[in-house]
Amino acid sequence: MLILGIESSAVSAGAALLKDGKLISESYLNVGLTHSETLLEVIDTCLKNAGLTVNDVDAFAVSRGPGSFTGIRIGVAAVKGLCFGTDKPVYGVSTLEAMAWGAALDAYLVCPVMDARCMQVYSALFSCENGKLNRLLPDAPRKLDELYAELKGFSGTLLFIGDGADLAAKYFSDKPDVKYRVFPEIFKFQRACGVAFAANISYNNGDKGENASALTPSYLRLSQAEREKQRRTT
Amino acid sequence: MLILGIESSAVSAGAALLKDGKLISESYLNVGLTHSETLLEVIDTCLKNAGLTVNDVDAFAVSRGPGSFTGIRIGVAAVKGLCFGTDKPVYGVSTLEAMAWGAALDAYLVCPVMDARCMQVYSALFSCENGKLNRLLPDAPRKLDELYAELKGFSGTLLFIGDGADLAAKYFSDKPDVKYRVFPEIFKFQRACGVAFAANISYNNGDKGENASALTPSYLRLSQAEREKQRRTT
Repeated sequence: MLILGIESSAVSAGAALLKDGKLISESYLNVGLTHSETLLEVIDTCLKNAGLTVNDVDAFAVSRGPGSFTGIRIGVAAVKGLCFGTDKPVYGVSTLEAMAWGAALDAYLVCPVMDARCMQVYSALFSCENGKLNRLLPDAPRKLDELYAELKGFSGTLLFIGDGADLAAKYFSDKPDVKYRVFPEIFKFQRACGVAFAANISYNNGDKGENASALTPSYLRLSQAEREKQRRTT
Repeated sequence: MLILGIESSAVSAGAALLKDGKLISESYLNVGLTHSETLLEVIDTCLKNAGLTVNDVDAFAVSRGPGSFTGIRIGVAAVKGLCFGTDKPVYGVSTLEAMAWGAALDAYLVCPVMDARCMQVYSALFSCENGKLNRLLPDAPRKLDELYAELKGFSGTLLFIGDGADLAAKYFSDKPDVKYRVFPEIFKFQRACGVAFAANISYNNGDKGENASALTPSYLRLSQAEREKQRRTT
């Protein structure tokens, strides 16, 4: 089972190949170029380095959000093109869950955090047992104060991972009732290997993926334009 | 400060670019091809994806061992070529320390482990404080029984990372006095980003790197041929 995972929902972009659960190739990029320019190149090098082509892939996986609206659209559009061209299924994966798999360590409560601007973060919360995740909070956009209020119900040391990890750490630095750590720098940002890994977990649980035409982004909130419109019309 | 890190000391191979401490590009490969075929291609795609060339690099870093003798030689030879061609310094990094930076989490004693065959592992041990490593055991080839004996002097939960992590976990599974976890699958193997990161730590500590002509591999034991010869002649 060869899964190609794609990540472009935030500042980093990447592609990863997972063969029967083992990561065999990954290309990761975080250079601030727009993903529309770089993503297909990154997918191409990920495959070429492994001596494979897109036709060798059994299923695709993409982080469908939450995240940057533009970034998610680029990833979802790219994977739909690849699926239509190869007639293969797709797994739409939560960006936050994909991150959490890379930090699934029992000693911590894993808290993936993405900078959602507008004083918000996209976040979730997981506990771990023997490297398996157990979801404690749903994916949602939250003000940091709201996240703080929700986290108070759980005891343990938080492990922040994601492009909002430093933002969260800064916010919680003057909250002595919250213990936290930030995931090591080199693995902190969104990675395609987590997307492919989350899809492989679904596959192992009997999920055969979906037809690419059914895949939708998971924005979790209205776009800024929609919010402006709503504000003007209500 | 742009550092290009190279990792080829075991089954995985890769290249990573760290700009002022931030990972901007990484290519990772674990397909069983010989690194002599793939390593330069992987370095090339890592640079190209980021829109950079080898001339943009300020310093090179390579995992100089321990590990596969052939793998180390390929990495060290490649980085010497790159340094001579560009007149840039090199940081020779412990493969085990490079791995440990990716797992620097305070809740654990970080134990990088590489499969050294012949019933041995290359291993080391670190504690962490606020994401900084503190070395507790030197890099060395150890029989698993020897590692067990040395680890008894430390209390805490071990965090195994590296291509020998599953081997170590299997060995310790019937040792109730040793608590351990294995690092999440997607980040478990040797990665070039850890090599670049370790070099950047040295740079931040005032180490300017060395001239490539002075760089030597760190095998930590005699080659099989040398051991055979020693056995025959003593």
